[in-house]
Amino acid sequence: MTKAYAAQSADTDLEPFSFTRRDLRADDVAIDILYCGVCHSDLHHARNHAGYTLYPTVPGHEIVGRVTAVGSEVSKFQPGDMVGVGCYVDSCQKCKPCHAGEEPYCVEYATPTYGFMDRHDGMPSYGGYSENIIVSDKFTVRIPEGMDAKSAAPLLCAGITTYSPLRHWKVGPGHKVAVVGLGGLGHMGLKFAKAMGAEVTLFTRSPDKEQEARRLGADHVVLSTDEAQMAAAANSFDYILDTVPNAHDVNPYVATLAWNGTLILLGLLGAIDPPLHNVPLMMGRKSVASSNVGGIAETQEMLDFCAANGITCDVEMIDIQDINAAYERMEKGDVHYRFVIDNASLRKS
Amino acid sequence: MTKAYAAQSADTDLEPFSFTRRDLRADDVAIDILYCGVCHSDLHHARNHAGYTLYPTVPGHEIVGRVTAVGSEVSKFQPGDMVGVGCYVDSCQKCKPCHAGEEPYCVEYATPTYGFMDRHDGMPSYGGYSENIIVSDKFTVRIPEGMDAKSAAPLLCAGITTYSPLRHWKVGPGHKVAVVGLGGLGHMGLKFAKAMGAEVTLFTRSPDKEQEARRLGADHVVLSTDEAQMAAAANSFDYILDTVPNAHDVNPYVATLAWNGTLILLGLLGAIDPPLHNVPLMMGRKSVASSNVGGIAETQEMLDFCAANGITCDVEMIDIQDINAAYERMEKGDVHYRFVIDNASLRKS
Ligand SMILES: [Zn+2]
Ligand SMILES: [Zn+2]
Ligand SMILES: [Zn+2]
Ligand SMILES: [Zn+2]
Repeated sequence: MTKAYAAQSADTDLEPFSFTRRDLRADDVAIDILYCGVCHSDLHHARNHAGYTLYPTVPGHEIVGRVTAVGSEVSKFQPGDMVGVGCYVDSCQKCKPCHAGEEPYCVEYATPTYGFMDRHDGMPSYGGYSENIIVSDKFTVRIPEGMDAKSAAPLLCAGITTYSPLRHWKVGPGHKVAVVGLGGLGHMGLKFAKAMGAEVTLFTRSPDKEQEARRLGADHVVLSTDEAQMAAAANSFDYILDTVPNAHDVNPYVATLAWNGTLILLGLLGAIDPPLHNVPLMMGRKSVASSNVGGIAETQEMLDFCAANGITCDVEMIDIQDINAAYERMEKGDVHYRFVIDNASLRKS
Repeated sequence: MTKAYAAQSADTDLEPFSFTRRDLRADDVAIDILYCGVCHSDLHHARNHAGYTLYPTVPGHEIVGRVTAVGSEVSKFQPGDMVGVGCYVDSCQKCKPCHAGEEPYCVEYATPTYGFMDRHDGMPSYGGYSENIIVSDKFTVRIPEGMDAKSAAPLLCAGITTYSPLRHWKVGPGHKVAVVGLGGLGHMGLKFAKAMGAEVTLFTRSPDKEQEARRLGADHVVLSTDEAQMAAAANSFDYILDTVPNAHDVNPYVATLAWNGTLILLGLLGAIDPPLHNVPLMMGRKSVASSNVGGIAETQEMLDFCAANGITCDVEMIDIQDINAAYERMEKGDVHYRFVIDNASLRKS
């Protein structure tokens, strides 16, 4: 039996739960989980905010651990390897996005790491708030030698969510990039955009975040509640990564896009409300876009980029027994910048 | 005095009006107007839909005519040349978009052909519902030899509005392009996308437009009111040119965008309402964008492209005395596909 923490309903706390992982398939890697990051999606899913959660559910898709066994056809990994698992654990492997190595865009929908059914045996997928996981080698990435395993965990979601659009839109020297919101995604957005050579600005509603933002890579900070600062930022940014996870007015950010600029909404999971106005898009040939996490190949590239550039996620360690309190704090934005579960604590429960 | 037709208020018909054009400046071209297309923007402006119309106003920004005189520094044009004037007649000439030949995106705002003030003398700009116009040679284009002057007129707005985004987003063979709406813009969108080598689809609410759409270049027609046809079109199009000029739900069109596809809103001048949903953008890395007309260099390129490919606008000729009735018909979408004023009729009034 695998020890875990699960939500049993939308309005109860997460609590101890145990279940049995599947037997190893030929392409599987068995992983003892050391650390698991706590993503805002975990909370949304546990509380059934989207309305399709199947209970019990074991969240967690920022997983780092050690390989303990591999299936008969696995040659890429061997016991003892430090590896990671992110937001998806399977896909059709035959559509255009899958062939392009962009599995999250699989036209038959990639299988999320938790809360959905396995494509082969129809059993529910359980995530990383657990002692171990069994995953196809095609969805396992290698944690680079020497990288701190704790702070690597959130790279598997918060990291690749911000890295992927910056690569897709080819951000680099000469570009002006802004980040809206300084949470798990936002702080990684600052680090990546800076490391890629862009001139980086943070939009924030908190005047006291300036020093912290500069430490994380921001060249400038714009107080989004200050009309004069917003007016001065008009027509400035080639790209804006908006990481705010709830409904908000995006029109003031569109106004700060440069000609041909793109606003990339990475946090919002609902309607753009208040509605987006089209004339500012027209007069500046501006775009509003969104993107999912990157594929497995790009996730590996991101980890290697982090190792080469000394980038990690800023984390706050918790025991699994603290998960409900952590959710409360996360809802208030009170985390710098990602909670990571020390999965050894599961043995205590 | 120049004879013209003007709106004197938001709720009165256009009626005869006369005024004096400025004296020729060194860089000016004086043009006797032969034909002027009737754009939906003319109606919006005459009726003050945006709330900033200054009366009297003489609309018209799809102008074709013959040069009658040129200023002392003009070498590109000479009397007798057939030329055109589109949506803008001036810009700052020193900002980044101006230097890139994309004057409509001038950071100091390009001067529209009617309804605004001249940058140099502060006098109101009057458009093409008039006998003649005086315009800087930098905002004058050449009508290619042998092109029918009547059907060339609407190319200066309806043509370049659809040509420019197709060029900006590099549409060509291998791309699937859809057009929403079969009006002045839509019918040009079909012709251009087809001539550029794309596979072209028309979205329409009218089952009786299929034959006409195919004549104009559509390979396929999708009835947007038919749920089964819309479902079959899911994840199909690399680009959609949405030419609908009023508020409508764009989410069903987003659903038909392919992975990485872009919805380009060319007609809408207000908010995107009902609001756009972000999850479909995220799951397909889709974009929503808009664009303005192309610059003068691209407008000339478009005219030459039309001449080379035998493309013209389908027009219905009217006398200026018919303009108010034409507006009524245009509001009902009852025009195939652009009204063009025979400006010789001004001499009758
Ligand atoms: Zn996540
Ligand atoms: Zn696939
Ligand atoms: Zn127009
Ligand atoms: Zn300019």
